[in-house]
Amino acid sequence: MALKYPSGKEYRGNKPNAARRPAADYANRGMTLEDDLNATNEYYRERGIAVIHKKPTPVQIVRVDYPKRSAAVITEAYFRQASTTDYNGVYRGKYIDFEAKETKNKTAFPLKNFHAHQIRHMEQVVAHGGICFAILRFSLLNETYLLDASHLIAWWNKQEAGGRKSIPKQEIERHGHSIPLGYQPRIDYISVVDNVYFTR
Amino acid sequence: MALKYPSGKEYRGNKPNAARRPAADYANRGMTLEDDLNATNEYYRERGIAVIHKKPTPVQIVRVDYPKRSAAVITEAYFRQASTTDYNGVYRGKYIDFEAKETKNKTAFPLKNFHAHQIRHMEQVVAHGGICFAILRFSLLNETYLLDASHLIAWWNKQEAGGRKSIPKQEIERHGHSIPLGYQPRIDYISVVDNVYFTR
Repeated sequence: MALKYPSGKEYRGNKPNAARRPAADYANRGMTLEDDLNATNEYYRERGIAVIHKKPTPVQIVRVDYPKRSAAVITEAYFRQASTTDYNGVYRGKYIDFEAKETKNKTAFPLKNFHAHQIRHMEQVVAHGGICFAILRFSLLNETYLLDASHLIAWWNKQEAGGRKSIPKQEIERHGHSIPLGYQPRIDYISVVDNVYFTR
Repeated sequence: MALKYPSGKEYRGNKPNAARRPAADYANRGMTLEDDLNATNEYYRERGIAVIHKKPTPVQIVRVDYPKRSAAVITEAYFRQASTTDYNGVYRGKYIDFEAKETKNKTAFPLKNFHAHQIRHMEQVVAHGGICFAILRFSLLNETYLLDASHLIAWWNKQEAGGRKSIPKQEIERHGHSIPLGYQPRIDYISVVDNVYFTR
């Protein structure tokens, strides 16, 4: 199976699995959490509100060809696991760092959406005084929450000790913060960051 | 021309040009500024000093194959221009952001090592209260400097207005800060950050 995109169009899947979706699914691209966050971060940058970018997908490049008179072509490469979260930047002088994930589950957020490196990175960021959280979307319910990294880390560590493999939705409702969804910006998580990390 | 690396060995060139070097040059890999900074950042993370990572090389993925029973293979992709600097993270709660470049020039640092997106990004970081600088290495002299983004931005803007295309070395000596080089960490730029951004 091979997916070929029209020239100039960017491959959007962040992980191998994402690209396994049939091409028809890409009609709904505008609805993914990643698209919404990219548009939101662009809005924040253009308005001078915050400077936050998604990191590029980590790729291990094995083979590069140099056709005459045209750009270098990577002809063999592999997806690598990220060693950090996907998003970071600066807001009001502070370091901001987060991971964003969505689930079709309606009652709990499966921890398999994260991997150990990301959790260890979050622990480090918290230890160094950065603002660190997860943005969790229940896509079938159209509900999105900001959950401080401390809670995610606690649930992850409980899992490692043999506990449950997901965070119950009511726990996310209790300890997290609902993010208002709109047109511009689509996911106004900075308004939540203001309330949670700056004014109390 | 094609460069093929042994399996498991990572392609290290950050830009198409870097990969044009003959394979023999890779014997000197341990000497590149990027290698030194990666080792330094790992040292800082392991000691709990700072959490700073290099961002992955931005790649536009066009075609992905899924061989049965093995990992997805990217079979067509292109290098993209970075929209930000290469390094960022958190130190003492503050956002840290920098670009690192080396030159073989002995008397000036050519501005062609940077591109407009990176300079605009640096302006945004400064405006939002982040700590932002360039690490500049004169590789034939084995001298490395930290230069605050404000100076780089000023020289860039002068160039755009028709001024010179490089920063004279004596200006970097005057306004920048020499970074001590050692064994561990190899490039102790955080000690300079402490002096420049925290204690005065």
